[in-house]
Amino acid sequence: MNNFEFKNPTKIIFGKDTIEKLSKELPEDAKVLMLYGGGSIKKNGIYDQVMNALSGRQVIEFGGIPANPEYAILIEALQLIKEEKITYLLAVGGGSVIDGTKFLSAAAVFDGDTPWDILTKNIKTKNGMPFGTVLTLPATGSEMNSGAVITRAETIEKLAMGGPGLFPEFSILDPQVITSIPERQLANGITDAFTHVLEQYMTYPIDAILQDRFAESILQTLIDVAPKVLKDPTDYKPAADFMWSCTMALNGLIQKGVPGDWAVHMMGHELTALFGIDHARTLAIIAPSHYKYNFEAKKEKLAQYGERVWSITEGSIDDKAYAAIEKTEAFFHKLGIDTKLSDYTKDYEGAAEEIAKRFTDRGWKLGERQALMPEDAQKIVKMAY
Amino acid sequence: MNNFEFKNPTKIIFGKDTIEKLSKELPEDAKVLMLYGGGSIKKNGIYDQVMNALSGRQVIEFGGIPANPEYAILIEALQLIKEEKITYLLAVGGGSVIDGTKFLSAAAVFDGDTPWDILTKNIKTKNGMPFGTVLTLPATGSEMNSGAVITRAETIEKLAMGGPGLFPEFSILDPQVITSIPERQLANGITDAFTHVLEQYMTYPIDAILQDRFAESILQTLIDVAPKVLKDPTDYKPAADFMWSCTMALNGLIQKGVPGDWAVHMMGHELTALFGIDHARTLAIIAPSHYKYNFEAKKEKLAQYGERVWSITEGSIDDKAYAAIEKTEAFFHKLGIDTKLSDYTKDYEGAAEEIAKRFTDRGWKLGERQALMPEDAQKIVKMAY
Repeated sequence: MNNFEFKNPTKIIFGKDTIEKLSKELPEDAKVLMLYGGGSIKKNGIYDQVMNALSGRQVIEFGGIPANPEYAILIEALQLIKEEKITYLLAVGGGSVIDGTKFLSAAAVFDGDTPWDILTKNIKTKNGMPFGTVLTLPATGSEMNSGAVITRAETIEKLAMGGPGLFPEFSILDPQVITSIPERQLANGITDAFTHVLEQYMTYPIDAILQDRFAESILQTLIDVAPKVLKDPTDYKPAADFMWSCTMALNGLIQKGVPGDWAVHMMGHELTALFGIDHARTLAIIAPSHYKYNFEAKKEKLAQYGERVWSITEGSIDDKAYAAIEKTEAFFHKLGIDTKLSDYTKDYEGAAEEIAKRFTDRGWKLGERQALMPEDAQKIVKMAY
Repeated sequence: MNNFEFKNPTKIIFGKDTIEKLSKELPEDAKVLMLYGGGSIKKNGIYDQVMNALSGRQVIEFGGIPANPEYAILIEALQLIKEEKITYLLAVGGGSVIDGTKFLSAAAVFDGDTPWDILTKNIKTKNGMPFGTVLTLPATGSEMNSGAVITRAETIEKLAMGGPGLFPEFSILDPQVITSIPERQLANGITDAFTHVLEQYMTYPIDAILQDRFAESILQTLIDVAPKVLKDPTDYKPAADFMWSCTMALNGLIQKGVPGDWAVHMMGHELTALFGIDHARTLAIIAPSHYKYNFEAKKEKLAQYGERVWSITEGSIDDKAYAAIEKTEAFFHKLGIDTKLSDYTKDYEGAAEEIAKRFTDRGWKLGERQALMPEDAQKIVKMAY
């Protein structure tokens, strides 16, 4: 096991009808900016629940944060924060709204030239403006971690940021919110969380026995609840298991003491930037090709995953490892998630070269050993056509 | 899954040679009281490591906190805290020293009549004196939770306490500390952590799929590493897995959203109070009888545990559940832990009645459904003779 430090101060308030507890989590004198997305919360009743809970508080709204939170829109919100002397941010949404709020938490206290530096210069925010979240879409884990990914249309870029001062102070997780989520987004959420676990687990053996078993536990739970959640999102029990699994998949715990890969995300982000494909679907496109391309480096863990998660008992290490990749791809297909780039766009020619060029420009090496060069990424993306 | 709130702000610093990072975790101007136990840290080098790390700091020492931290001794430390205007506590030890430090953290800010009230009146401390820990004995999980158990010889009592303000600010976990721990204490640590998991898991099914799997993960890891740790505690890899498992067994995570039992601890504490038997060993004495006595209420989970943790595939639910209890007892035996009260004392007659009397006096009901009456405890303890 590698040495590690772990601290996650976010308070989780989980369960039925917990949104009504919102008010007591906010400081008495807070001037709150409530941030949300495309307005679905006004249709599904979550907006009303939040507003009822905030009755009597000083609250200003900022809606319209899109999936893949857009820098230009966030800069408008930043302007509002300054004009209105906001002291507390409240994200009501999924990963995009929460990620956007994290950027604003950092930008509100940043005193550099331009807030874009936070992303391009990898500024680690130590104390952002305090914020909490009401999660409306289980998927990214952003409700219990300190990282975010921001998109900028102007430059067709999607970049990561974070820092120890960007944990939500609290996050309210009511599994009932999934009732109104379209099947497409539920499938995305399952795929996103599943791939988050794979990125932290599918590397090389390092004798972190408990972390491996925790990772496998999350994968097993997602496999177990996925068909139930898609069939009937009003069924509370699987909804709760699904929601908690998504949070645990990326709150830092299973990453501690082990190597992380994250190459699937790095390549996936580019597919979103280039083609606008849903984040989770880009991961499902890249992951199978990535594991096949890096088969030798990952086959021990792939085989362990095959044995423990998919109950593959027959064959050699290689056989089990390969069968585990096939099981993973079949799982995505069963969720209605296509796993080839050509399933999503006809304009895929040249994408691999473009992505390799971007990685070259940024000097990026990928993977748990930082051994994947841009030309490797090019081959992997091409395998995923 | 039940509704829950989860917040655990302790910073964990885990790994090889991490004690040297101690100084930067303490406030610059802290006046530190360093608390430790019987002096083993002076023989095994940990005292020197801590003192080197604290060089240049204002530090006063208080040694001699015994296993089952004794109230009368802690009151002496409390006196010192007040006389010396201590501002920060540092526990260097195992669960007893850390628990004693938590009592002091609470007592230092308590303004009631007598600090004993903290225990008898179940006072929940919201903001204790800040403290950190250097863990020297993996077992209790006290390094990452906000609970403690304090013993008072004068009244032959052992009582629990806690509160959201009693999390350590940081805990340093260097698995190399187990190198010098006697086999007896290592076996105790494994048994303690194992039973902590059982108390939070061996109840009734509640569809908290991920919590179940996390609990099983810790049990499987402990079973895996136990023989390696006992055979060669200088082997770093199993030592690290063992240490992290003990912390995760009782840092609150696997308890969230599920019922807790804790009857084994309640009865076990009395055996320590009455006979001075090591805490972990009292749990091994009570647990098998407890699970047999409550077989009908717990058999679904016992069978699940048998299947997943002990790979028991044959027989009915009842068969698997019973076999799982036997496997558990055999596991304790293999660690060198006896599981009958008569293995530890000849004076066991009357113990069951005395314990039942105490529970009656306190008005206690036990178990995940609070359905175990003092007469049930009497029968369980008698089964464990």
